Amino acid sequence: MQKVEIKVYLKEKKDLVDSFFQGYFKRPDRPPVLFESMLYSLFAGGKRLRPILALAAYEACGGSAADIVPYASTLELIHTYSLIHDDLPAMDDDDLRRGKPTNHRVYGEAMAILAGDALLTEAFCILSDPGLGRNISERNLMRAASEIAGASGCRGMVAGQAQDIISENGEPDPAVLEFIHTHKTACLIRASVKTGPLLYGSDDDVTASLSLYGHKIGLAFQVIDDILDIEGDEKETGKPVGSDERINKMTYPRLYGVEKSREMAGDLISEALSALDIFGPGAGPLREIAHYVFKRRS
Amino acid sequence: MQKVEIKVYLKEKKDLVDSFFQGYFKRPDRPPVLFESMLYSLFAGGKRLRPILALAAYEACGGSAADIVPYASTLELIHTYSLIHDDLPAMDDDDLRRGKPTNHRVYGEAMAILAGDALLTEAFCILSDPGLGRNISERNLMRAASEIAGASGCRGMVAGQAQDIISENGEPDPAVLEFIHTHKTACLIRASVKTGPLLYGSDDDVTASLSLYGHKIGLAFQVIDDILDIEGDEKETGKPVGSDERINKMTYPRLYGVEKSREMAGDLISEALSALDIFGPGAGPLREIAHYVFKRRS
Repeated sequence: MQKVEIKVYLKEKKDLVDSFFQGYFKRPDRPPVLFESMLYSLFAGGKRLRPILALAAYEACGGSAADIVPYASTLELIHTYSLIHDDLPAMDDDDLRRGKPTNHRVYGEAMAILAGDALLTEAFCILSDPGLGRNISERNLMRAASEIAGASGCRGMVAGQAQDIISENGEPDPAVLEFIHTHKTACLIRASVKTGPLLYGSDDDVTASLSLYGHKIGLAFQVIDDILDIEGDEKETGKPVGSDERINKMTYPRLYGVEKSREMAGDLISEALSALDIFGPGAGPLREIAHYVFKRRS
Repeated sequence: MQKVEIKVYLKEKKDLVDSFFQGYFKRPDRPPVLFESMLYSLFAGGKRLRPILALAAYEACGGSAADIVPYASTLELIHTYSLIHDDLPAMDDDDLRRGKPTNHRVYGEAMAILAGDALLTEAFCILSDPGLGRNISERNLMRAASEIAGASGCRGMVAGQAQDIISENGEPDPAVLEFIHTHKTACLIRASVKTGPLLYGSDDDVTASLSLYGHKIGLAFQVIDDILDIEGDEKETGKPVGSDERINKMTYPRLYGVEKSREMAGDLISEALSALDIFGPGAGPLREIAHYVFKRRS
């Protein structure tokens, strides 16, 4: 798969996800401001990486991406809720996200909290509706829902965010840093990839390989995020450079320096690619996405 | 069913729910403070009304309550999350809940937001695990999960809370008040009752009758809540009298006066009881719970 092709692939899959959201939220209900607040963040420029990973993994298993778009899209709902809550004044207190004012800066804290709550809940409305997919058994849908819920909760993403908050200003500690990155970021990215084989009903070894791939690119994604916070171009990242340092976050570059961190990210990407060895050309997009995660500038 | 018996019934069912939580959260994970914060609110004196309604409805349909305790308990996880978030400074800014300091007063705002997020997510971990119940098909579990998610999200409870927040200091309006009460409170209580027939796989007419019962007692519950905020004994309700008035909430007593509100609650209870006419003595506990909702003092 050529570089130009992966761009086309990502665009095509992003369009599937965006179209689903446009249809699903076509008739906003009362109160309008709640729906405005939800949709403001949902359409604030997300790249839809997590749903795309689910779609690409489903294709690598032999399925047709169009059959699972609603279920893959729930990963973006959960990711978006987590960003809204992370940006709150009581958490990271961020004013900008992807170059736009954060949700609470536009709609106030109360509505931002509620919009996050609603996006999270909506994910599980979709994951409990077998009528929204095609060729997906209830058993497989429930296995995917279980994986996604587990990766998002108190033994997954929320644990990572909680540890992140309580580690601010703490002494740098490699074990704590790994816990934060694994839970805050890698868990949901791994679950996104696993959504593919779980919905398809793949064999355990296929699921395990994709799970390992997801874990590795999830960690790499967060290391690169930490580096971009220091070296990124504000115009490309859409947030002020140095915001982690401002609140004294525990990050890879702070612990290991930028060069060593970039090297570690490269190693993680290599390991992710090795995990795909059992797949043929059907995993081409997943391989390209691994390269993309390493090279991304926003 | 005698008065003394319903007390025994409620205690027995509450113990089932509490035992489940004790087992389920036996091994708290990292970071400890997140789990402490979650369990602080989960064991802060809740009466477990919503799970008990699910268990009682399941029994009225002919099932054995012990088979669905984990699924019924998810309603308490969702209720608890909603209380934690509602009490936040950006929302109702409450210092006391059931006579104890609110979650954010003990653990800070960030951890309170995350504890709420985690409790909500944990509900869906449980609702996507068919191994936690007995004699429940995946199809029926998914139907219950769908009902619960729908009642909790942007077309249910969150919509009610959002409207409640934006209606503070607004002109009293009966239609808006009904929207708030229906969505903020009645939706989840109705879903709690419906969880019984949905998990059991009851006929549509049975489900519809129980749904109507749940809607009516849900509305009555909130009207009584509004009255207790004015007339309740602080020692029994566990929160300061007049806290709705302090933030100029739109309530039934404010719109109709206390006497008329009590009359309306009584009518709702009668309608709830009529909805149970198709049931025999198996619905005894549900009938007693309706009376309890009307007479409660906390």
